[in-house]
Amino acid sequence: MSSRSHSNDDLAASLPSPWPKSPVLQAAYRARSAAADLAPLPRSVKDDALLAIADALVVRTREIVEANAADVARAREAGTAESIVDRLTLTPERVRAIASDVRDVAGLPDPVGEVVRGSTLPNGLDLRQIRVPLGVVGIIYEARPNVTVDAASLCLKSGNAVLLRGSSSALHSNSALVTVVRDAVGGAGLPADAVQLVPGESRESVRELMRARGMVDVLIPRGGASLIKTVVEESIVPVIETGTGNCHVYVDAQADLDIAVAVLLNSKAQRPSVCNAAETLLVHRDIAADFLPRALDALAAAGVTVHADDRVRELAGACGTKATVVPATAEDWETEYLSNDIAAAVVDSLDAAVQHIRLWSSGHTEAIVTTSQPAARRFTQLVDSAAVAVNASTRFTDGGQFGFGAEIGISTQKLHARGPMGLPELTSTKYVFTGDGHVRG
Amino acid sequence: MSSRSHSNDDLAASLPSPWPKSPVLQAAYRARSAAADLAPLPRSVKDDALLAIADALVVRTREIVEANAADVARAREAGTAESIVDRLTLTPERVRAIASDVRDVAGLPDPVGEVVRGSTLPNGLDLRQIRVPLGVVGIIYEARPNVTVDAASLCLKSGNAVLLRGSSSALHSNSALVTVVRDAVGGAGLPADAVQLVPGESRESVRELMRARGMVDVLIPRGGASLIKTVVEESIVPVIETGTGNCHVYVDAQADLDIAVAVLLNSKAQRPSVCNAAETLLVHRDIAADFLPRALDALAAAGVTVHADDRVRELAGACGTKATVVPATAEDWETEYLSNDIAAAVVDSLDAAVQHIRLWSSGHTEAIVTTSQPAARRFTQLVDSAAVAVNASTRFTDGGQFGFGAEIGISTQKLHARGPMGLPELTSTKYVFTGDGHVRG
Repeated sequence: MSSRSHSNDDLAASLPSPWPKSPVLQAAYRARSAAADLAPLPRSVKDDALLAIADALVVRTREIVEANAADVARAREAGTAESIVDRLTLTPERVRAIASDVRDVAGLPDPVGEVVRGSTLPNGLDLRQIRVPLGVVGIIYEARPNVTVDAASLCLKSGNAVLLRGSSSALHSNSALVTVVRDAVGGAGLPADAVQLVPGESRESVRELMRARGMVDVLIPRGGASLIKTVVEESIVPVIETGTGNCHVYVDAQADLDIAVAVLLNSKAQRPSVCNAAETLLVHRDIAADFLPRALDALAAAGVTVHADDRVRELAGACGTKATVVPATAEDWETEYLSNDIAAAVVDSLDAAVQHIRLWSSGHTEAIVTTSQPAARRFTQLVDSAAVAVNASTRFTDGGQFGFGAEIGISTQKLHARGPMGLPELTSTKYVFTGDGHVRG
Repeated sequence: MSSRSHSNDDLAASLPSPWPKSPVLQAAYRARSAAADLAPLPRSVKDDALLAIADALVVRTREIVEANAADVARAREAGTAESIVDRLTLTPERVRAIASDVRDVAGLPDPVGEVVRGSTLPNGLDLRQIRVPLGVVGIIYEARPNVTVDAASLCLKSGNAVLLRGSSSALHSNSALVTVVRDAVGGAGLPADAVQLVPGESRESVRELMRARGMVDVLIPRGGASLIKTVVEESIVPVIETGTGNCHVYVDAQADLDIAVAVLLNSKAQRPSVCNAAETLLVHRDIAADFLPRALDALAAAGVTVHADDRVRELAGACGTKATVVPATAEDWETEYLSNDIAAAVVDSLDAAVQHIRLWSSGHTEAIVTTSQPAARRFTQLVDSAAVAVNASTRFTDGGQFGFGAEIGISTQKLHARGPMGLPELTSTKYVFTGDGHVRG
């Protein structure tokens, strides 16, 4: 600390000297400086920059798609799975869709400046709690180039600078996208360093980000469980844990069977690879004999394999379903399949379902299907997850579906943000109190 | 994880097997179980328990004061500074005051159940974002027995279980207080394990708390800078950083000199040992020759030593003040004195003051004294601290002063909570969405 010199000449004075040697920390310091410039900007200036980004993405589609083709070719050479290659691929249509998302963000209200609380204190002081940007947001993510632009637009709109640490397998795509975004940001008169790709493809660059407390205000890891675990365990920068979704559908003793089948099928099979898809079915014993034959046939028709406890297997055998039913082990209860698989168990009561969920859930989304108001009330009270669905599919836990516009991730931790994170979740607050010479007695 | 057995019999089923050997983790598991019981409790039940605690503290004052006397005697034997012995000491009056604080917490609104956001989505789903308890709150603190009861009452009121890791030098006091609190909590029909002293006096017990991710939802370190640094750097449980206050008073070019002197003196000298006391004075060059002679005399009268830059020292020499003025080094700009000392510098502009603050402040509270509306606006916009005071003492940044009732600490980080933390800051939220068979298309 004492290596910092004291000078008040200009903004550079609020950066430490000597200038750090690490390119990652240099990027963080430039982001910090850009964040100071962004914080007081009014909405119209930020929206103009966002619209300039959207225009530039469309105008420069060709260079983006060409850069992306290099990543795609390299991924294919490396024998990458087609589903991952598909997520990596940018077409002109997809670039237009990304640009359209940026325009949507421009249309969202600006969270910065919102007065969250305000009052006049008994002594006459005016107290206001006001939303302010977090400052510098670091995002660590995998090979999805659309995240690059989504994160940049959400951070800009909320007055934050962003450090983007994408996957090396999307490096050409991300470089092209960030070049286009930075040119547009600079052209709109804002600091281009508000959006930066973190230099270096090695794990070391992630490690440096995780140590940059005081320079980076929050790290949001998006991606696989091992990446998230590493960041949560090693970062001294505050982290928001995202994403793992071991979601449950519980069918209560009293339930509309049509709704139960529809909610189960949509939760599991509408898009199995995403975090808000269901991974476990729990059925109350009183309705199991009525519900399971229909449910198993519906799952069979959707190509879903059922990893079942003894009671589900017994009923499956008795009803002669065509479903593929295999024995469940303890591991099935905690697995996020992200595939056409579901674990299934019969439970003795609603409370037993809640206990199962408390024990095994990742805290993302749990659904109850019931016609009983007391059961719905008890389930929503006792389940301790980011979202609880009543007679609705788990698939609705999503920033877009919730009406937040875009989302920067889905928090499965309790601090700061829980569930889908939109623009307000990218802010902090500041108290301002105003008097006329007030002192404490 | 796979060592956990699958069973739905009772609440114990939601705890891992085998039962942990570590007493700290056992306490955490018991807290988790208690937290599940507390979460759905209505306000009246929690308030009854709080009032029972307050009554018990008064009734059992004698055993509390006797236990405290043992700690005080040991502290005196160890040659502990009288100011610390004073903070450790409990008298019957102080116990009554602590009980009165508990009654105040009972009178505060219950944050749990508050609907933070609510809407009906375009597809007809009813979406509600509802405040819920965090779960298990861990507090690590120094030898202030009043914190034991404050933390317990705030956590109970907000539906959280609390793990109290106090200082070994207050062990007898904390044990007596927690015994009284637990007896009252149990007597009111709530789980006594909602309030537990963390077993073990060694650093190892702190280390175990910091590793208990998934069992402890947040750790709040209160105390010295080194304790806070250790917890921030080593914990994988989410942390809220509290407390360090390198607060600034900036006297602008246009300022009412009477107000400037009053705010400076109150900010610095009304209670120098606390985090919201001012540690640095910045004076605009245009008002320095008028303001500093009066300010230095006032500081001299209050017994404050001034650590001054060259320009302040020059003016001090010219005006012949009786103040003790010593040369400032770079270290003075970053020091939280917590004593009758203040650093002082002349700055060339409001922006230069902001740069100084951005460089050296701990992000707690900064005050501007000005009669210029544009200056007040620019200062409050550009200063990036938890609180900004306009023509008011820095000493007002306090949960009690802000009308939050008690406070569990003052956050100097940006995530989750910033500034004084009251009951809402001890909560998370949960989304509940209700449909009638809604599925995603």
